[in-house]
Amino acid sequence: MSVTAAQGFLAAGIAAGIKENGNPDLALVVNSGPRLAAAGVFTSNRVKAAPVRWSEQVLKGGRVSAVILNSGGANACTGPLGFQDTHATAEKVAEVLDGHSAAEVAVASTGLIGVRLPMDKLLPGVEKAAAELTGHGGEKAAIAIKTTDSVHKTAQVTKDGWTVGGMAKGAGMLAPGLATMLAVLTTDADVPAEQLDAALRAATRATFDRVDSDGCMSTNDTVLLLASGASGVVPDQDAFAEAVREVCDDLARQLIGDAEGASKDIRIEVINAADEDDAVEVGRSIARNNLLKCAIHGEDPNWGRVLSAIGTTAAAFDPDRLNVAINDVWVCKNGSVGEDRELVDMRYREVRITADLAAGTESAVIWANDLTADYVHENSAYSS
Amino acid sequence: MSVTAAQGFLAAGIAAGIKENGNPDLALVVNSGPRLAAAGVFTSNRVKAAPVRWSEQVLKGGRVSAVILNSGGANACTGPLGFQDTHATAEKVAEVLDGHSAAEVAVASTGLIGVRLPMDKLLPGVEKAAAELTGHGGEKAAIAIKTTDSVHKTAQVTKDGWTVGGMAKGAGMLAPGLATMLAVLTTDADVPAEQLDAALRAATRATFDRVDSDGCMSTNDTVLLLASGASGVVPDQDAFAEAVREVCDDLARQLIGDAEGASKDIRIEVINAADEDDAVEVGRSIARNNLLKCAIHGEDPNWGRVLSAIGTTAAAFDPDRLNVAINDVWVCKNGSVGEDRELVDMRYREVRITADLAAGTESAVIWANDLTADYVHENSAYSS
Repeated sequence: MSVTAAQGFLAAGIAAGIKENGNPDLALVVNSGPRLAAAGVFTSNRVKAAPVRWSEQVLKGGRVSAVILNSGGANACTGPLGFQDTHATAEKVAEVLDGHSAAEVAVASTGLIGVRLPMDKLLPGVEKAAAELTGHGGEKAAIAIKTTDSVHKTAQVTKDGWTVGGMAKGAGMLAPGLATMLAVLTTDADVPAEQLDAALRAATRATFDRVDSDGCMSTNDTVLLLASGASGVVPDQDAFAEAVREVCDDLARQLIGDAEGASKDIRIEVINAADEDDAVEVGRSIARNNLLKCAIHGEDPNWGRVLSAIGTTAAAFDPDRLNVAINDVWVCKNGSVGEDRELVDMRYREVRITADLAAGTESAVIWANDLTADYVHENSAYSS
Repeated sequence: MSVTAAQGFLAAGIAAGIKENGNPDLALVVNSGPRLAAAGVFTSNRVKAAPVRWSEQVLKGGRVSAVILNSGGANACTGPLGFQDTHATAEKVAEVLDGHSAAEVAVASTGLIGVRLPMDKLLPGVEKAAAELTGHGGEKAAIAIKTTDSVHKTAQVTKDGWTVGGMAKGAGMLAPGLATMLAVLTTDADVPAEQLDAALRAATRATFDRVDSDGCMSTNDTVLLLASGASGVVPDQDAFAEAVREVCDDLARQLIGDAEGASKDIRIEVINAADEDDAVEVGRSIARNNLLKCAIHGEDPNWGRVLSAIGTTAAAFDPDRLNVAINDVWVCKNGSVGEDRELVDMRYREVRITADLAAGTESAVIWANDLTADYVHENSAYSS
């Protein structure tokens, strides 16, 4: 599992003292080749953390030899000095790993916004992590990037002679401080950077981008895919893209399943949309409706709130032709009362909402969570 | 106060039995002229309740002789039969009020979506309300349109010989069932429909439209302005528009102050925006950020969440020039750490967030509420 499932990768996870409670907080992933191809996708938030701005530059070269990730601080909104901290971190990694260049070291950070990282602890931590690098360090690395995650998240898909593995952190896009999601995927397949990029963008678009627990967009979101080529196998591009999608999907589902304070995982499928963009827009609008999220928490099949959310979108539909099912009971037909809402059984963690726009043939699935008093408690007391 | 403060209006509020608990649930407002001019603004939700679709047609004529409003049921997503119920209600009002036409009777409903109204109770209620019409019935009418409102809401502005009064219901745009806000304003000023329309649109744009407690948009929102001309005074158009704005602002503030489950009223002022649209977009993004709303609830001046919300917008700004104050302490300067966050005193109900985009000279104010466990409780148990 994790980032060391594929050949050609070493990893470590240690406690550098960035977190005051002494928990692991620094992870290092090293690509030992022979190939150093890489691709990355980053938050679309215009307020970007220093490590995101750094890593975006690194990834433009299509080569990453190492990734250093810290929890315990997002290094976002920290100004020019925060960017210097990121730069110094990459330089330190290049220094302790013989023969590496800082320009090929990606950096990712997660934690509270607006606080400088304790570099007096982080830089010695880099040395310690480098000393502990092993071909079985993936799980420790996954543990070291946790913030409010209750469990660490790893995934793996193995095909004919090659593997895609990965780790992620994020408490369901609900992470306090908004430094939400980091993920690193590795593969020993022999794939050039352009194909990694295509596979990663297609995969994240249909997985991480469709997880929407609270509509809040992080300053730090980072997903990286590194290829070592160590298997010597050049996979079929479609098969490779599918494997990357599977690992991303697995990790994305683990994020939703571990969402802070959530008691329900909500699968929102929009069907019969005029196009995929419409389906995604409607799915997101439903996913972000606080009143509906409260109703789901209360196990109340309140389909009126689904219709009201659909009504705020610009998607193609006729209000009098909308149909909505909750857990497969079509409680709304033709924009009005449908089957008896008493038939809806909402006792289980997974709740399925199906919105039929009756406007075409496209569809999309968005995953969300309910809104709970626990969410409020966790997120009202984080930085204090 | 309320809709009978202006001359030429009668009102009543009674218990028709629509609400099972026996509380008042039916209000009637009658314009006895001599003028019957009227204007209205309605929800922009594409899923519109039957009474909204009816009243939009009525208002096209610019004349309204009576408004019938019920709580206890939104009559939204009720199909053709629901629309027939609205039509029958207007016909009943015209029948019991001698000389009225149903085509000049506006209808408004509020309550749960997706449930037919009990017409066997509502229609006899119209007769009862008509029998109780008085020139002092405004407060009773305001009480009869309450749903989860803890108090009824009325307002009044009197100028040189003429008055604008009004009533509203809505628990801060947080109302369960999404049938959120109804408001009726009346004036005895002698103003034609076109000027009423201009004044009302300008007023709602800067008041009701900038109240954003939970980002949820109702299927039933309706704001009506009726003029009787009974004062005989033709006011200056600017003075009249200002009076309408003042009444709308007063009522809008009362909605925020009575928001379900809220413990804080959040005044978000966006300054130095390139244009007003940018200011409103940024203000709304901040207003709708659940993580920030939780932080405010926890009296945590978590400015990173403000920056993250700004970063999701398309407004003109440079991330490195953003400044944010919370209760007048500039905790973020130039996109980075500013004054000591410990200086921020958040013990009081009103919290002021100032976001300086450093991109121009325009500004806007949006009012919002915090997100609380009480909000979750109220909205997870409403329709069950």
